[in-house]
Amino acid sequence: MKTRIENALASALATAEREAPPKLAAALQDAVFPGGARVRPRLCLAVSEACGGDAPRLADAAACALELLHCASLVHDDLPCFDDAALRRGRPSVHRAYGESLAVLAGDAMIIMAFDVIAHAGAERPRRLAPLLTTVSRAVGTPHGIVAGQAWESEANPPLERYHRAKTGSLFVGAAMAGAIAAGADPAPWRAMGERLGEAYQVADDLLDAHAGPEEAGKPTGQDAALVRPSAVGTLGTEGALTKLRELVGQATAAVPDCPGAGDLRGLVVAMAEHLVPAGLRQSAA
Amino acid sequence: MKTRIENALASALATAEREAPPKLAAALQDAVFPGGARVRPRLCLAVSEACGGDAPRLADAAACALELLHCASLVHDDLPCFDDAALRRGRPSVHRAYGESLAVLAGDAMIIMAFDVIAHAGAERPRRLAPLLTTVSRAVGTPHGIVAGQAWESEANPPLERYHRAKTGSLFVGAAMAGAIAAGADPAPWRAMGERLGEAYQVADDLLDAHAGPEEAGKPTGQDAALVRPSAVGTLGTEGALTKLRELVGQATAAVPDCPGAGDLRGLVVAMAEHLVPAGLRQSAA
Repeated sequence: MKTRIENALASALATAEREAPPKLAAALQDAVFPGGARVRPRLCLAVSEACGGDAPRLADAAACALELLHCASLVHDDLPCFDDAALRRGRPSVHRAYGESLAVLAGDAMIIMAFDVIAHAGAERPRRLAPLLTTVSRAVGTPHGIVAGQAWESEANPPLERYHRAKTGSLFVGAAMAGAIAAGADPAPWRAMGERLGEAYQVADDLLDAHAGPEEAGKPTGQDAALVRPSAVGTLGTEGALTKLRELVGQATAAVPDCPGAGDLRGLVVAMAEHLVPAGLRQSAA
Repeated sequence: MKTRIENALASALATAEREAPPKLAAALQDAVFPGGARVRPRLCLAVSEACGGDAPRLADAAACALELLHCASLVHDDLPCFDDAALRRGRPSVHRAYGESLAVLAGDAMIIMAFDVIAHAGAERPRRLAPLLTTVSRAVGTPHGIVAGQAWESEANPPLERYHRAKTGSLFVGAAMAGAIAAGADPAPWRAMGERLGEAYQVADDLLDAHAGPEEAGKPTGQDAALVRPSAVGTLGTEGALTKLRELVGQATAAVPDCPGAGDLRGLVVAMAEHLVPAGLRQSAA
């Protein structure tokens, strides 16, 4: 699965970089490789396989698009006007390495590339193309996707649940539903699993921020406390957040709809969730 | 035609803004309304009509998407890390009015919205969807679209022809070809007309920068000379640039392929080109 995702990403970038301005091409490589856990594309492919996986190229394209959109959001989110992050995945952020204008453009290029990749693969399965694109665009756009989530940070009193659902949860929901659509299955039953997994991921990220060093997280930590941002650890304490995480992972596995590969998928969800817990807390989370 | 474009844009924004963070919604309105000449969507609709216009909703969606992508490129291009423009269409640029982070997000949102709009309309004509999306994404992405054009500005010695073709010409080519695809016609014969029109537009923009005040242009002028940027006026002089503009418009009208509405379209191209010449020079351009 890892190979499929890395290959799809490498192939998308290779097409986009041929004859492209060299610095933009380098910035795109840096934004995508080496990757993080590739959680969202793995979820997408796992759901597609669980649903029978009859169109692997389309599923690969959807997974690739989701990761490109995730990477785009990280590059823009690291910009000085947002988090001004110096590090990402343990290396200089794109704007620190290539300057702000190339960081803006690399993010734009990845968003466009994501839709282009799906459109190309969708030519073979034209009836799945529109719902797939609509599902992916909803997950990242406005009013309910990542961009809206980010924009809630500019409001004085953002509705917290909507903010988290848009900023983090939406792409998990999109990944699960896109995987189903790519395989010709009804996406609706997959929404709940994506939602619970997105919430679990948010809690895990809060735990990482509070309990991991920058080496493990690959980014500055301790930011929630420093910036007085809402966090599950702040609200529930460490033990409470771990309990919440376990509950959400349980709900996510329980929400996996009946399908040929339901058993495998439940196992994968548990394994992915375990991986998200900071190393120092894994004992107590077990 | 104007009404169709404004309605499509208003409807796309209305969907995106319902329940969206209020400042993001306001920034999106400001980025799109009141518009400029809407040259690219008009070209798209005109070509679609000239080809028989059998799918007006799809053509409207393509036209709307092209204008959203154009507006997104303006909002990002006005950012401090690019041109740091205070004015756009005679009013404060988006980042001056709403801050940098909302300007980045508004641009991102419009790019995503563009593909979403096409995907929605394309559900009715699934076989036209993939080529339409691919054509639009090529016009704006990397290596040959607007984003690549912008990124050439970060290189020490950009290849000038490729730079202009990517930054300005690509969206005219995309508009002409998308109009044909929306109407079920072969897009290939429309490329040449789009290319010549894009070049004409570039020359007209250079003339505007050199010979119009900020009121007429709706943005700061005199920038090419001040920033020692390559410009048709700088290379050819004013009279030479006007001659070049006339030649290119002639080539664009000559390049209109045989189709039911070829005559009307040729008339429209001439009228659009005339509108592009700064008022003070229109006499001598006639």
